[in-house]
Amino acid sequence: MTWKTAVANIPYGGAKGGIGCNPGELSVSELERLTRVFTQKIHDLIGVQIDVPAPDMGTGPQTMAWILDEYSKFHGYSPATVTGKPIDLGGSLGRDAATGRGVLFATEALLKEHGKCIAGQRFIIQGFGNVGSWAAQLISEEGGKVVAVSDVTGAIKNEKGLDITALMNHVKENHGVKGFHGGDAVDPNSILVEDCDVLIPAALGGVINRENAKDIRAKFIIEAANHPTDPEADEILAKKGVVILPDIYANSGGVTVSYFEWVQNIQGFMWDEEKVNAELHKYMTRGLRGVKDMCRTHNCDLRMGAFTLGVSRVARATLLRGWEA
Amino acid sequence: MTWKTAVANIPYGGAKGGIGCNPGELSVSELERLTRVFTQKIHDLIGVQIDVPAPDMGTGPQTMAWILDEYSKFHGYSPATVTGKPIDLGGSLGRDAATGRGVLFATEALLKEHGKCIAGQRFIIQGFGNVGSWAAQLISEEGGKVVAVSDVTGAIKNEKGLDITALMNHVKENHGVKGFHGGDAVDPNSILVEDCDVLIPAALGGVINRENAKDIRAKFIIEAANHPTDPEADEILAKKGVVILPDIYANSGGVTVSYFEWVQNIQGFMWDEEKVNAELHKYMTRGLRGVKDMCRTHNCDLRMGAFTLGVSRVARATLLRGWEA
Amino acid sequence: MTWKTAVANIPYGGAKGGIGCNPGELSVSELERLTRVFTQKIHDLIGVQIDVPAPDMGTGPQTMAWILDEYSKFHGYSPATVTGKPIDLGGSLGRDAATGRGVLFATEALLKEHGKCIAGQRFIIQGFGNVGSWAAQLISEEGGKVVAVSDVTGAIKNEKGLDITALMNHVKENHGVKGFHGGDAVDPNSILVEDCDVLIPAALGGVINRENAKDIRAKFIIEAANHPTDPEADEILAKKGVVILPDIYANSGGVTVSYFEWVQNIQGFMWDEEKVNAELHKYMTRGLRGVKDMCRTHNCDLRMGAFTLGVSRVARATLLRGWEA
Amino acid sequence: MTWKTAVANIPYGGAKGGIGCNPGELSVSELERLTRVFTQKIHDLIGVQIDVPAPDMGTGPQTMAWILDEYSKFHGYSPATVTGKPIDLGGSLGRDAATGRGVLFATEALLKEHGKCIAGQRFIIQGFGNVGSWAAQLISEEGGKVVAVSDVTGAIKNEKGLDITALMNHVKENHGVKGFHGGDAVDPNSILVEDCDVLIPAALGGVINRENAKDIRAKFIIEAANHPTDPEADEILAKKGVVILPDIYANSGGVTVSYFEWVQNIQGFMWDEEKVNAELHKYMTRGLRGVKDMCRTHNCDLRMGAFTLGVSRVARATLLRGWEA
Amino acid sequence: MTWKTAVANIPYGGAKGGIGCNPGELSVSELERLTRVFTQKIHDLIGVQIDVPAPDMGTGPQTMAWILDEYSKFHGYSPATVTGKPIDLGGSLGRDAATGRGVLFATEALLKEHGKCIAGQRFIIQGFGNVGSWAAQLISEEGGKVVAVSDVTGAIKNEKGLDITALMNHVKENHGVKGFHGGDAVDPNSILVEDCDVLIPAALGGVINRENAKDIRAKFIIEAANHPTDPEADEILAKKGVVILPDIYANSGGVTVSYFEWVQNIQGFMWDEEKVNAELHKYMTRGLRGVKDMCRTHNCDLRMGAFTLGVSRVARATLLRGWEA
Amino acid sequence: MTWKTAVANIPYGGAKGGIGCNPGELSVSELERLTRVFTQKIHDLIGVQIDVPAPDMGTGPQTMAWILDEYSKFHGYSPATVTGKPIDLGGSLGRDAATGRGVLFATEALLKEHGKCIAGQRFIIQGFGNVGSWAAQLISEEGGKVVAVSDVTGAIKNEKGLDITALMNHVKENHGVKGFHGGDAVDPNSILVEDCDVLIPAALGGVINRENAKDIRAKFIIEAANHPTDPEADEILAKKGVVILPDIYANSGGVTVSYFEWVQNIQGFMWDEEKVNAELHKYMTRGLRGVKDMCRTHNCDLRMGAFTLGVSRVARATLLRGWEA
Repeated sequence: MTWKTAVANIPYGGAKGGIGCNPGELSVSELERLTRVFTQKIHDLIGVQIDVPAPDMGTGPQTMAWILDEYSKFHGYSPATVTGKPIDLGGSLGRDAATGRGVLFATEALLKEHGKCIAGQRFIIQGFGNVGSWAAQLISEEGGKVVAVSDVTGAIKNEKGLDITALMNHVKENHGVKGFHGGDAVDPNSILVEDCDVLIPAALGGVINRENAKDIRAKFIIEAANHPTDPEADEILAKKGVVILPDIYANSGGVTVSYFEWVQNIQGFMWDEEKVNAELHKYMTRGLRGVKDMCRTHNCDLRMGAFTLGVSRVARATLLRGWEA
Repeated sequence: MTWKTAVANIPYGGAKGGIGCNPGELSVSELERLTRVFTQKIHDLIGVQIDVPAPDMGTGPQTMAWILDEYSKFHGYSPATVTGKPIDLGGSLGRDAATGRGVLFATEALLKEHGKCIAGQRFIIQGFGNVGSWAAQLISEEGGKVVAVSDVTGAIKNEKGLDITALMNHVKENHGVKGFHGGDAVDPNSILVEDCDVLIPAALGGVINRENAKDIRAKFIIEAANHPTDPEADEILAKKGVVILPDIYANSGGVTVSYFEWVQNIQGFMWDEEKVNAELHKYMTRGLRGVKDMCRTHNCDLRMGAFTLGVSRVARATLLRGWEA
Repeated sequence: MTWKTAVANIPYGGAKGGIGCNPGELSVSELERLTRVFTQKIHDLIGVQIDVPAPDMGTGPQTMAWILDEYSKFHGYSPATVTGKPIDLGGSLGRDAATGRGVLFATEALLKEHGKCIAGQRFIIQGFGNVGSWAAQLISEEGGKVVAVSDVTGAIKNEKGLDITALMNHVKENHGVKGFHGGDAVDPNSILVEDCDVLIPAALGGVINRENAKDIRAKFIIEAANHPTDPEADEILAKKGVVILPDIYANSGGVTVSYFEWVQNIQGFMWDEEKVNAELHKYMTRGLRGVKDMCRTHNCDLRMGAFTLGVSRVARATLLRGWEA
Repeated sequence: MTWKTAVANIPYGGAKGGIGCNPGELSVSELERLTRVFTQKIHDLIGVQIDVPAPDMGTGPQTMAWILDEYSKFHGYSPATVTGKPIDLGGSLGRDAATGRGVLFATEALLKEHGKCIAGQRFIIQGFGNVGSWAAQLISEEGGKVVAVSDVTGAIKNEKGLDITALMNHVKENHGVKGFHGGDAVDPNSILVEDCDVLIPAALGGVINRENAKDIRAKFIIEAANHPTDPEADEILAKKGVVILPDIYANSGGVTVSYFEWVQNIQGFMWDEEKVNAELHKYMTRGLRGVKDMCRTHNCDLRMGAFTLGVSRVARATLLRGWEA
Repeated sequence: MTWKTAVANIPYGGAKGGIGCNPGELSVSELERLTRVFTQKIHDLIGVQIDVPAPDMGTGPQTMAWILDEYSKFHGYSPATVTGKPIDLGGSLGRDAATGRGVLFATEALLKEHGKCIAGQRFIIQGFGNVGSWAAQLISEEGGKVVAVSDVTGAIKNEKGLDITALMNHVKENHGVKGFHGGDAVDPNSILVEDCDVLIPAALGGVINRENAKDIRAKFIIEAANHPTDPEADEILAKKGVVILPDIYANSGGVTVSYFEWVQNIQGFMWDEEKVNAELHKYMTRGLRGVKDMCRTHNCDLRMGAFTLGVSRVARATLLRGWEA
Repeated sequence: MTWKTAVANIPYGGAKGGIGCNPGELSVSELERLTRVFTQKIHDLIGVQIDVPAPDMGTGPQTMAWILDEYSKFHGYSPATVTGKPIDLGGSLGRDAATGRGVLFATEALLKEHGKCIAGQRFIIQGFGNVGSWAAQLISEEGGKVVAVSDVTGAIKNEKGLDITALMNHVKENHGVKGFHGGDAVDPNSILVEDCDVLIPAALGGVINRENAKDIRAKFIIEAANHPTDPEADEILAKKGVVILPDIYANSGGVTVSYFEWVQNIQGFMWDEEKVNAELHKYMTRGLRGVKDMCRTHNCDLRMGAFTLGVSRVARATLLRGWEA
């Protein structure tokens, strides 16, 4: 997370902590008590200016609420100590859609660099979970044509563009895209190599690899997932001239809005959703500008530009804070 | 206050504390020393994230300044610990007019729901103290016609609309509306049942009751005072189709700007008056939207909608914070 | 600083602290260790709500970074404890130009009072360091004609207006204005009495004095430096009708943006440069309004008006905080 | 407790807190969780220099251990925060016997004032619980003859003196004195009026009253129980010349050793049992001296002397701490 | 005080603070409020491990009680923060007599080095205030013959030894030694040069000087006052072989018992007077041993030995704590 | 250390921390700075009631002084935070000799159980460093006959008993026992199997092993070193009836006096050496009593008895502190 938050230019670092258990096997009461004891053990290691937990696998807003409640017994009410809280307890509006919306803004910014805009481009979105479906919906609202999507249940294609609203309803009822009548079922394995302008892998890591890289027909790849492109594929695609927007920039919308939640809690003043989205737009647009500057200075691709930007920001701050005891 | 602040959607609860004495019988020095000792006794129970005192009967900005000064001896300078401070010590611009301006915004929002606006409506304002006179002035500025007002000294009526600026000057000089030449003196008891579109009781509780409810001719009642309508009157008016905007929403402008003062102090950055008023407008407008949503969901009147909104917000937050030790 | 910050209406006072040494004779490591030990000794006397150090002679952003780092060992990470930090560690955008930009806004506001604007006026800027060169550049961008500047290396004059961008480049390469071909070299001593509309002394104190005051031909003097006009000159100029904008108002742009840095750090949210400049504009404009109000009330000149404003604000706050133990 | 601790001359006051529940109906886990939540709610109100909980009805060493453990999560390990802890967690040696041993020392001191000593006196002990049985054992060891004891199961009398060790074994096995062969069973109701030198009521309050006071044959009554003598009996006995050692002095050995536990915890150094007992002896002996001084000064009986001593100590300390804010 | 406390080997340093006022002109209420405000200003600079105030000119036990009470509002009840408190609020037994008793112990230790003891020596005590009268009383109890004393009212001499108990009663009634019938009135100025074995100046500084040094007939001078011997007298007496016990050792009994008060408060356990006196005896005896060791090592007189001891202890501790930041 | 401190019955646990460096290669200034930075990193993990550092390999009193000084910058002066300090900074008298003296007391207690005393027994001491030489000296003072000692330079034997004072002087001058004329040089390897009553291994671990165990002629082995006897030797010796006093008890005198240092610092009152030694005697004597009780209860040898005692004390305290969150 350290490099991602450095690229996003938010005052965060990276750390993880967790408990080795299967939340699915625990009762709500057990989960709550486990979370509270965990919080008692780490309460001196987290805090508004120290380390700010947010949900990851197996945890969610309710877990954050418990952490906040237990933490507050020790340090007084401190809503900015955790992010990803329920909105009723100081969570930010717009956080649910944040990663997907960030993908939209990142794509928009990249296309603009190439003299294009969302409207008129054809998109394929691999993965239709929280991130992919929000991205699809927002791209569609902006006039983009989503020609194919896939998830674990299957893949759907429609050259004229899928009706995303209808698809969302279908997914809500059927827990998957499979069986949607607004397009043709296709092989989920082939979706990455279908014809399109912009390919958005939004599911697992490693899906674009040595096997399929040479067959990819998209001009732009937006890494909404973490590590969807492996290093070998990276090289192959670079030679083909495919432009890849790297994950540490492309999917940073989520942590950016987590940061906005923290800011709102610190200020004691919640933003309306328009403000959240407008600020996210600023951060994503400014982010690409920073990455491109690095690319120009160091004559490198976007991935290298993003890492260089992140690392150099951390290095500069570290040097400035000094060495002597 | 808990339900009112929950309806206003500000992160406050409710509590009261006081000293049994008559401030009128004490010297300024005695009042200051009494306030300081009181603060010494409660300084661990109040605070930016604990409980935030504000003036009520017998106290004012100077009292808040003393509390702040004494509190700061123990916890360092902490302007957000009290609200209602003098502007020179971190008080908010616009707080003086806040309740009156909130009444204006609430009325505006309600009329808009009924396809009307302030301009063109005829208003009667019972009570011409801080809240009532500010409401009158602002309504008048928006084009509303204030046809009658009353205070403890008497009542004045003018079918063509009172000249509020002239009336304010008269009141400043004569300590009451009595004797104002820009209208006819009427019986203060009759003012609530005079003909008008909007009736704004802005004085004491219980003025609209079983005795006069059936005679009320207004289509809308805006409860600027606390509890001006008693339960029996409520029922009678409901049957007559009179729309009552309940106090916990209608007069929440004051506590909302107290909250804005707290926010400004936390942020270390004071807002100009335009910003204060614009934010108050947002909060009041959003407030009525929330109340109306509740009314639609539960098919109830505005008072029940407001309470349901407040209680459900508190309940949801309580549940989310959890139960286990 | 107390009166300056009171005029600027920011919640700051004034204090100084330092170490008797010549930084030029110390290695970077020695400077860092000296700064850290100094911070260890005063860490309980400074803080976000106590006293906020900022750079002065012999110190700069790197020094502030060391103070912040050492302070944070004791009190946790607290970026708002010092201002004038490097941007990478929470410094504010726009701070470098702040005093110069404040001079522009102050001049603008003053001219407006006299029915004039920057465009069309002829300026002389004595002193071409950080403040003077920024002022020159910004005035030039607003259409003002800078007809002469001076620094320790010499003075340059061009009745048609100097090309400030070219001059800046010249200065960067030659460490001084001397030798600039876009104008004629003149005697640096005479520059204050050359013909112009607005004279901006932006170097040392005492340059306008009994000797040269009677020869000054400017209609307006903007005190970008501290104390450039001595009391005798003040009297002479007053009699001649020259309008002097006093230093405690005119050069308060720097400390105002220091305050904005503090605000941004407290809020955990950095402003973009447009926001910084827009807020500075508000503060400078509002500042002159306050000074002029004092002048009108007390029928005095701008210097007296500014001091009266500052002193009365501090006095009022002091009285309100109270006397009794 | 305030007057008792003042007579004992230990730096303690008095306060009680509790939970309305029946510990007998709760599982150990429920008791532990209840105790922990209770501690979370009051942890800011107790502490080494604030208020020091100790066991009372329905709580014991284990409860104190839980309070200590929970308290320490908030304030760090602080063994002096509770007394009556298990010895393995910082409890004091000799605390179990402390009240009984205090009764011995008090009796010894009183008899000495009358030129007598334990050896040679005949004792009746009403109540054979923790206090009574320890008193019996220690008196017996000092050569006193315990001629009768009672508990809820019955009463035993032996003019030649009971074999207390044998009786203790009997009680351990049979949960009561009933059936002990080393004496004759007598009516428990009559035990208070049997012939003896020293009567020690060590059970409930109010046992010596208007009904039986006149029949009491003891020359000395040592109030090991709280309030065993009611005011009417007090008067009757006074007239008969019976010397009553009042409870607030006579049974203060328990709280005194609680105080010693606190001292040992503060010092980080535990005393051996000899030291505990020797200090208790000093405190009890000094206590009677203080009470007698008061009796002489104010010409009053021991009860009045004890209260006067306690109240005057508290009053003097209160006055010295001062009144002004 | 730093050197004196170092010689006494107690963990204290030296510092003074005060208010410029005449306590005699203030009411008790004014004194209390002044003391409280003073405490509010310095409460962060004093404390159990920082700086421990004790009474000096114009202050006493009551003042210390107020400081303690006010300090405790900020830091919780902390009796060890001040010494010289009233006994009812944690003051030490034996502190009143401490300096006088220390003089006794110091004299005893010195005489022992010379093969003598108190009994059998003839003493003159100049000054009969708290220190001098306690010294006289204790010396007399040990068998010393006090042949003359003086105070501001006069001087009394009796070759057979004064009856100190009778003298004390006389002083209590007559506020001075003048008029005591148990001896002959002599010229107070001559008392220092009367015949005796041990001279104890216990009043003001500078009384033994160039004028009278050569006439002094005592073999030992015990400096119970501060600086009673001026440097020139010191030289003259040295040549005559008079042994001078220097003030920083001889009158350190007062601050030593202040330290014992602090220890007792820290331990939460008060000592009886025997223990206080026994410990004082240990400290004074050990003190002379340390001074004599220095004298032997450095071949110097007692005054130089005492200073060397004090300075070297402070120096060694300072070096050990280290230099690097 | 946990089991050792539990056997010693002091309120300590066990933990280690260190820096990977060779102190011999660093300058004093580098060591000081390294120690200070280390302290800055761990200052929140150590403390009077948390973890109390003491010297081990490569550190000593000076290191502890630096830790104390640096720690105190953060938490105020807290001498009890480290032990093993220089005496001038709060170290305990008697600590240098503490382990050796503890060995004496342990041996004494063990011999007493067997009806013997130090006087009359013949001792061999393997290892003549701090522990061994102090043990030799103290044993010799008690009348024990030390017939042989060894160190890395060689071994010396004298059937009539070595003159330990002379040997100490020899060692001081020659840095080893080799060449001492008061006895005969023997093979250091053979010293463990020479004839004697009590063998005290006081050097490295594992010296008594399978190879030499069967040849050992001592009746008692006192483990002054850590782990001098390996498990196989333990078995062999048990069969031979040799009584082994295990290290976790026998050499616990050092940590016990470290604890006394902590106690003295907490109490603010230093003990004289007699008190330190007397308390150590109590702790060592009580310690063997506890171990023997365990041996009797569980019918086991001293090593198992000591471990059982330590483990059971920790277990009991852990259980009492409880399990529920």
